[in-house]
Amino acid sequence: MKLTLAIEKNDATTAARAGVLDLGRAKVETPVLMPVGTYGAVKSLSPDDVASTGTRLILANTYHLFLRPGHELVAKMGGLHKFMAWDGAILTDSGGFQVFSLAKLRRITEAGVAFKSHLDGSDRFLSPEIAMEAQRAFGSEIAMVLDECPPAAADRAYIEASMAMTTRWAARSLEAMKGSENNTFGIVQGGFHEDLRLRHLDEIAAMPFQGIALGGLSVGEDRGVTEEIVAAITPQMPVERPRYLMGVGMPEDLVQYVAHGVDMFDCVIPTRNARNGQVFTSEGRLNIRNAAHTEDARPLDEECPCAACKAFTRAYLRHLYLSDEILAHRMLTLHNLAYFRGLMARVRGAIMAGDYAAFVDRFMDGPEARKET
Amino acid sequence: MKLTLAIEKNDATTAARAGVLDLGRAKVETPVLMPVGTYGAVKSLSPDDVASTGTRLILANTYHLFLRPGHELVAKMGGLHKFMAWDGAILTDSGGFQVFSLAKLRRITEAGVAFKSHLDGSDRFLSPEIAMEAQRAFGSEIAMVLDECPPAAADRAYIEASMAMTTRWAARSLEAMKGSENNTFGIVQGGFHEDLRLRHLDEIAAMPFQGIALGGLSVGEDRGVTEEIVAAITPQMPVERPRYLMGVGMPEDLVQYVAHGVDMFDCVIPTRNARNGQVFTSEGRLNIRNAAHTEDARPLDEECPCAACKAFTRAYLRHLYLSDEILAHRMLTLHNLAYFRGLMARVRGAIMAGDYAAFVDRFMDGPEARKET
Repeated sequence: MKLTLAIEKNDATTAARAGVLDLGRAKVETPVLMPVGTYGAVKSLSPDDVASTGTRLILANTYHLFLRPGHELVAKMGGLHKFMAWDGAILTDSGGFQVFSLAKLRRITEAGVAFKSHLDGSDRFLSPEIAMEAQRAFGSEIAMVLDECPPAAADRAYIEASMAMTTRWAARSLEAMKGSENNTFGIVQGGFHEDLRLRHLDEIAAMPFQGIALGGLSVGEDRGVTEEIVAAITPQMPVERPRYLMGVGMPEDLVQYVAHGVDMFDCVIPTRNARNGQVFTSEGRLNIRNAAHTEDARPLDEECPCAACKAFTRAYLRHLYLSDEILAHRMLTLHNLAYFRGLMARVRGAIMAGDYAAFVDRFMDGPEARKET
Repeated sequence: MKLTLAIEKNDATTAARAGVLDLGRAKVETPVLMPVGTYGAVKSLSPDDVASTGTRLILANTYHLFLRPGHELVAKMGGLHKFMAWDGAILTDSGGFQVFSLAKLRRITEAGVAFKSHLDGSDRFLSPEIAMEAQRAFGSEIAMVLDECPPAAADRAYIEASMAMTTRWAARSLEAMKGSENNTFGIVQGGFHEDLRLRHLDEIAAMPFQGIALGGLSVGEDRGVTEEIVAAITPQMPVERPRYLMGVGMPEDLVQYVAHGVDMFDCVIPTRNARNGQVFTSEGRLNIRNAAHTEDARPLDEECPCAACKAFTRAYLRHLYLSDEILAHRMLTLHNLAYFRGLMARVRGAIMAGDYAAFVDRFMDGPEARKET
């Protein structure tokens, strides 16, 4: 089914908005952060673990699943939801970002992008049509168009040409999705040039996408420039369609971009940082490896309802982490997912209460917006 | 509290027996296989996962916990059960076996054994008194005496001298456990010499241990010799005390040693082999890496009630395994634990039905006693 986004509240003090994104299989409260399940699993967690944090929508990577186990196999196994035993909703990216950041020896033409797999060096090819075919095979509720992600340092002329091709690829992606019951999001590029971003938004918003994403803003330039771009673009984005800022971010990023009217985010930080021992808590970040936790009988976060915080002390989790026990990765990941889910629930609550600007100020002055100590 | 072993049934056709081992915190049906939780966690599983397989008694390694995080810390955190959030019972080994197989540069004297930690090369010392102090700190329901595990190839004179010292160490261990509410098991050594084994059993059985273990039989010599030794010793073991064969074994080993009257086993096979992709099923062993499972939509075992078999296909688990996803290790471990738990339940059922010899014959002719194909 085609999604609907019901806006329940527009904040009076900022451009933030709270809504419910109905994806058929799941109704998702927005703003939402999607955890990343690269290979069809949120790393270290079972579907039950993911669901236990209140998560109803995850992201899976087309690039990775295209290479292994392949979209044909996933289709044979009944689609990605059934394959991974996930009863929530799934957004799949197009693979473009990974081709441009992970794969080797890529060669871009109007037809698509030829590359060598980072797994085995084999020659592969991704086109808008193939990216959409793969995502139709997965059966994800939301498919992303294939776009080119130019390097942050690319010059203006390159970015303009790339943007134009991304628009043509967007049209081909839509054509390839014809007849599908699922949703397709367009992606706005344009580097860090405000005028190019606005021009590209016009082109993408003119097409019948169910949602619009901002790509290429999670890497490269400094944080201030990124926020200026987002602040300039979001007021021009159609209000009735979900707005998705790709690859963002840290807690303070999420809190601030929501103020500009972003509805959706995805980020590997909750999961990847957990595997590095970084834990997000209501009192700030900590690293479980730190000797300060050696004899600490407290949970990771006294205020957290997750299974890790209910069962285990910091001392035990530190011991597990230092002993390379898999349970440490699972428990830290579960906790971080619960933290980010709780953060987004607080964000949404503040919008519903009509006082989001004050929430942002408090948050940015508080311990959660600070670096690990 | 001191344990009780209530024998519910002595098989008429073999020396097998079925009982209930009451350890206070848990009543454990015997024969039982204890999964191994080396560092205070059954590798890759949470306590809930372990409990979901019906497991009520696990083994933890004193050597590992002594080195990291140290028994003093575990005591400060309220003991091992609380530290690892496990509400079942725990048997701890003495550390002896690991000192003799893992540690470097060990030097054995009457006082104890000096060694270098395999973790950081630091100089450490383990004596009967220290091994018991550590196990008292852990608060395990069952502590094992410190014994010397002579190399399988040691000559008879060495083994005799070693046995005599192990007996003296056993007396010191008992002395060190005086006043403890928990249980202590003695360990019978004697290499692969039947007469030495019997002599040592006399010495150990004469002491007030709550249970008696057979050590040094899981390594070295061939399987036939080991079974001959066990067959010769078990008829002489006190009937009222639990009999524990250490470090055994594969499904066919468990089935056969139960026939000789063994009540307890521990083994890393269910957990370690899972991490290598080996899966035990009612139709035999398989390796999940095998290409035969690529498109297999069946669970690991159609007859298994575990969470892995309820949720996932072989195709998905193979994909996860090949993608180095932690969830693969957890699910294969969970399944193998459930398989072995189910096997021991079938073993016990056959004893209770009074027809264990027929069960052994069927089992040894069936697919479960065969090597992976």
